[in-house]
Amino acid sequence: MQAEIITIGDELLIGQVIDTNSAFIAKQLNKIGISIYQVTSVQDDRNHILKTLKEAESNSDIIILTGGLGPTKDDITKKTIAEYFNDTLVRDDLVLKNIEHLWKSYIGGKLLQVNKDQSLVPSKSTVLMNKLGTAPGMWFDKGEKTFVSLPGVPYEMSTLMEQYVIPKLKEKYNCPFIMHKTLLVYGIGESALAARIEDWEDALPKDMRLAYLPNLGKMRLRLSTKGFDEIKLKERVDAEIEKVIPLIKNEFFGFEDEEGSAEIIIAKQLTKIGKTLAIAESCTGGLLAEQFTKHSGASAYFNGGVVTYSTESKKSVLGVSKEVIDSHSVVSGPVAEAMASNSLKLFDSDFAVATTGNAGPTKGESDAEVGTVYIAIASKSRVYSEKFNLGNHRIKVLNKAVNKALEMLLKEIFKN
Amino acid sequence: MQAEIITIGDELLIGQVIDTNSAFIAKQLNKIGISIYQVTSVQDDRNHILKTLKEAESNSDIIILTGGLGPTKDDITKKTIAEYFNDTLVRDDLVLKNIEHLWKSYIGGKLLQVNKDQSLVPSKSTVLMNKLGTAPGMWFDKGEKTFVSLPGVPYEMSTLMEQYVIPKLKEKYNCPFIMHKTLLVYGIGESALAARIEDWEDALPKDMRLAYLPNLGKMRLRLSTKGFDEIKLKERVDAEIEKVIPLIKNEFFGFEDEEGSAEIIIAKQLTKIGKTLAIAESCTGGLLAEQFTKHSGASAYFNGGVVTYSTESKKSVLGVSKEVIDSHSVVSGPVAEAMASNSLKLFDSDFAVATTGNAGPTKGESDAEVGTVYIAIASKSRVYSEKFNLGNHRIKVLNKAVNKALEMLLKEIFKN
Repeated sequence: MQAEIITIGDELLIGQVIDTNSAFIAKQLNKIGISIYQVTSVQDDRNHILKTLKEAESNSDIIILTGGLGPTKDDITKKTIAEYFNDTLVRDDLVLKNIEHLWKSYIGGKLLQVNKDQSLVPSKSTVLMNKLGTAPGMWFDKGEKTFVSLPGVPYEMSTLMEQYVIPKLKEKYNCPFIMHKTLLVYGIGESALAARIEDWEDALPKDMRLAYLPNLGKMRLRLSTKGFDEIKLKERVDAEIEKVIPLIKNEFFGFEDEEGSAEIIIAKQLTKIGKTLAIAESCTGGLLAEQFTKHSGASAYFNGGVVTYSTESKKSVLGVSKEVIDSHSVVSGPVAEAMASNSLKLFDSDFAVATTGNAGPTKGESDAEVGTVYIAIASKSRVYSEKFNLGNHRIKVLNKAVNKALEMLLKEIFKN
Repeated sequence: MQAEIITIGDELLIGQVIDTNSAFIAKQLNKIGISIYQVTSVQDDRNHILKTLKEAESNSDIIILTGGLGPTKDDITKKTIAEYFNDTLVRDDLVLKNIEHLWKSYIGGKLLQVNKDQSLVPSKSTVLMNKLGTAPGMWFDKGEKTFVSLPGVPYEMSTLMEQYVIPKLKEKYNCPFIMHKTLLVYGIGESALAARIEDWEDALPKDMRLAYLPNLGKMRLRLSTKGFDEIKLKERVDAEIEKVIPLIKNEFFGFEDEEGSAEIIIAKQLTKIGKTLAIAESCTGGLLAEQFTKHSGASAYFNGGVVTYSTESKKSVLGVSKEVIDSHSVVSGPVAEAMASNSLKLFDSDFAVATTGNAGPTKGESDAEVGTVYIAIASKSRVYSEKFNLGNHRIKVLNKAVNKALEMLLKEIFKN
């Protein structure tokens, strides 16, 4: 079973908006065994939409469109689809009622004709009622093929996908299960990893695909397959995973889940063992703390952090001694270690991680080369630091430093 | 002049990675007057890549590909492009030297054959040297048409786009200048703003386009035009800007530049007047500090911040009194104000901003409704706070809170 996603809107083609819809839809479809052949983004242009629909129909069983359903003149998806199906637009009274209700509840004043006309739908379509907005979703059966048109507003689209599209697709098609298992691996490069597990990879069953997903110092290794017997599938994937883990036993830190990555593994473990975390940042400037606080539930284990950006604040807020700074420089292992130890105490925590470095583009208060970052870990029993050279691209240095800090934290927490 | 973007990688089609590359590339091309006909995302699949290349070549002048250039077996873009051009792969010694240098500097150990082989490039291509990674960019001229293959890693791709691709495209094609000027406007809604500046907008020259770009509580107003005489273009755009600014004199805070937005205006002003900033965050958890520290030069004005996530740390680290917390709750104006005042002193700064709120999805230690955020500003002469209700989507609440904090900070700093 194969699907295609077509995202429609000028804003996508001028780079003003990043297309997050297609990743969401792809993930949802993948979960029910539908793979995505292609994602195509096109402008609000009649000919181009018609051409893209035709090509998609010739390649795929399921075509999902988002965008171009608004009330203004540039939104032409609905009438273009009607044209594609030689169909006419008819008023849907329930949709009109929904529009009137939304208008009354959130906007007020006289309902405009353009908004009333959002209740016009192709006569051959089944309406997917959009309680969150005035543009309805539409479902079209064309024999074995299915076309679905959804609004481009992400939360309206995602709600319609979950409420209607996925259940209806599961009902219409005999969907296989798709199984992905993603291993989080640290401390080994892509090529070295590939060499290490080459024999295992070569011996994988034909239906299993392995992907290497390197990203700024961390690596994800994803094993995928699909089939109709979910239990058997899981057993087969787990059996392969069991063979590879011994080959990477020092580098493997856990399975990545839906929500996130290393920080989620750390968060779950800290919550489970009832321990707490403090963070002291210099060069990473809040980015490390944000990895944890962007997920809900951080208050269960994250006591807090400091961003001691200036040298003065390292002394006054964190109590790093002038002597240590003067004799080792502000970008140094001893300073990172003092930051970690002192933040551990300041926030009365079980673990602390600290960063100090020079992210560039120029040398700062210290003489450290651009890209030099020291990361320290403190626990109640020990404190230590490592030095890294993370290149000369500022944003890259910061993100690599965060990944290195998460790696060291993972190692420390699971050691205990 | 028309371009097409092809992003390659299984991870895009299963929704594991959101394609941010195509928006970046589209924006860069738009700036030099090249519009995007289509963005297509496909799997690492030989036939599909060949088919997509062929279709793109028939529609567009410029085809930019990203992804599939890694050293592992699933990365097949390079050999597929070579096949498309009936070309063979040859060793590029400079690329090999770059790979060896990167390996020695950042990885160490024996250079693997798969990485050495990343220096194999199609003989008809011009190498775009990638100093940040082992996969080189490649440029192909096919008569008037251009094909460019770039690595999928965003930082590597963006650096190659800026360093090589854009300058080379400008040289090859007669690209017009596209001029955008973006005004940052706070404290007025889209419709009210449109009504206020309606006469000015109606009187704009035919070639100028105005766009309203509302985003999570801030508004950007973008005036665009294009032409071949850069100096004249700039004069004409500036003349229109001079007319509109008096109409929004209380809401206009500056021009957004390439690098960033409100935080850049704040950074420049603080640096200019020699004043410093401290930040105390609860719900925003480091995200606000990161807005400043992600840009270079922050050490000139940013003394530091605290992320007092737990109630205990608000007391112990920031010295917010138990009485204030007990009588007003931890999510309250008085607590936000105490956080701001105390961080001002702790970091010996001229301005401080503080956030405390509940970003959801569930109620936390306080009884505050999900989405309630208090933001406080402290200067040497005063401290005050505002209450906001920012909805019930966690990431949205956090980003809206950051935008509100930047707005309040802008107002405070420019008041002085």
